[in-house]
Amino acid sequence: MDRRPIGVFDSGLGGLTVLKELCRVLPNENFIYFGDTGRVPYGSRSTETITKYARQDMRFLQTFDIKAVVVACCTVSSLWKSIQNEYSIPSVSVVAPSARHASETTTNGRIGVIGTAATINSRAFEIELKRLLPHAEVFSAACPLFVPLVENGRIHPGDKVIELVACEYLEPFLTFGCDTLVLGCTHFPLLWRIISDILPQVNLINPGVSAANELIRILKENELLSDSDSTGSVSYYVSDDTGNFSELASLFMEQNITNSVSKVDIDEYRGEERYHEG
Amino acid sequence: MDRRPIGVFDSGLGGLTVLKELCRVLPNENFIYFGDTGRVPYGSRSTETITKYARQDMRFLQTFDIKAVVVACCTVSSLWKSIQNEYSIPSVSVVAPSARHASETTTNGRIGVIGTAATINSRAFEIELKRLLPHAEVFSAACPLFVPLVENGRIHPGDKVIELVACEYLEPFLTFGCDTLVLGCTHFPLLWRIISDILPQVNLINPGVSAANELIRILKENELLSDSDSTGSVSYYVSDDTGNFSELASLFMEQNITNSVSKVDIDEYRGEERYHEG
Repeated sequence: MDRRPIGVFDSGLGGLTVLKELCRVLPNENFIYFGDTGRVPYGSRSTETITKYARQDMRFLQTFDIKAVVVACCTVSSLWKSIQNEYSIPSVSVVAPSARHASETTTNGRIGVIGTAATINSRAFEIELKRLLPHAEVFSAACPLFVPLVENGRIHPGDKVIELVACEYLEPFLTFGCDTLVLGCTHFPLLWRIISDILPQVNLINPGVSAANELIRILKENELLSDSDSTGSVSYYVSDDTGNFSELASLFMEQNITNSVSKVDIDEYRGEERYHEG
Repeated sequence: MDRRPIGVFDSGLGGLTVLKELCRVLPNENFIYFGDTGRVPYGSRSTETITKYARQDMRFLQTFDIKAVVVACCTVSSLWKSIQNEYSIPSVSVVAPSARHASETTTNGRIGVIGTAATINSRAFEIELKRLLPHAEVFSAACPLFVPLVENGRIHPGDKVIELVACEYLEPFLTFGCDTLVLGCTHFPLLWRIISDILPQVNLINPGVSAANELIRILKENELLSDSDSTGSVSYYVSDDTGNFSELASLFMEQNITNSVSKVDIDEYRGEERYHEG
């Protein structure tokens, strides 16, 4: 039994779709959320830069006495295996739980994956799916315009722009004939209605739901669940303006979070990594 | 007469449309270009974060013995007046030259401005235009999806997505009846054909062309023009992967620039600014 908080981090706002699921299934836990809004997006950057930012995000979260961490960013999750061993606390990334969830959901063995360019190029979901279901057929495609469209509020049925872009990105999955699609970016659950209108027969996998179930399992296994019976708190930290974040985050979380957001100078948390390349 | 290089910086790739004009009109000068590709875009961030990044970019450029600097990012240019005095070398931002160019071009006194959210919110172009032409009517609108669309190569007539978004953003300017439109973001000249198809009667102001003319004037005034008669060089520095940059930059500059791009760890150039807000 452990009442210490759980750290959650993301490149910006998208991780709030994960946090929302975590709060729903673990209402008595306390959470510290960090969104790197001063450097979002991660999904179009190189592996080296994403790794550097992820280490800084972890260094900040570890200034709190956290008992576990959730990597609520699919882009960071897709390379988490390569740095996970640097940390001694239990961690949950969204890749493995979503892949497991998808492998348990499919009946025809044809699974689709959509995500940012970095996530799709990493092949992390594909590798994990093939490990779990060696005979599965996996088709992946980057949807690089989905994040800016979501962040501009273009998420509603009837919005011609998001409908046009979504048709273009998702049509190959109709041809492919998958019965399950992993929404491999935490922004994408906000496009649930748009995507399910185009792929009505397909099961959509929300990485937040999968990660929340995995977190419960890991906390139980390590005897880290809180024994509190009062509602837990969430403290939010961001690397850019708190006002802009509060407004959008209140929408994502469906509650007013104005008073619990603080700004942090994330590049103070740089370590000893130094590089100059020709 | 001075053969030292000229510094040019931008949040990423967009400033290359400015650099291209600089190289065209000043072929014998040497340039150092810095693109902050590890933290692009600036246009959706707060003034405080943009100011902090701009100071770091300047600190890096000043490690070279530069004789002048061009702020090739409209977002930074829109707040440049507030930090310009921190530097002793001559500087050219894109706002004042583009506004002057527009004020000299209009005949009906109705001028439009498009840009990123940060640029439009700053009202920098509008204030400068009103200073130059007090009776001008200025209508401004943010076009936040143009940058991600350009960076995804959606710039060609016939691409339904860019055409739909451009119609939505630009229709109010048809109603407004401007005869001149400032492309207040250095990505936007790449949408020249798309924009001029929708606004065929409107003069488009390219901030790169305006800035290049201003740079010539300032170099002459300060007797800083190079007396070299051989073609100048350009060295490129970026804060993310050099490979990704080289590929896109070669397209922008219409020449192979693979060998002249280096990576720099830009947050090494942080100064004494420290902040923590509640």
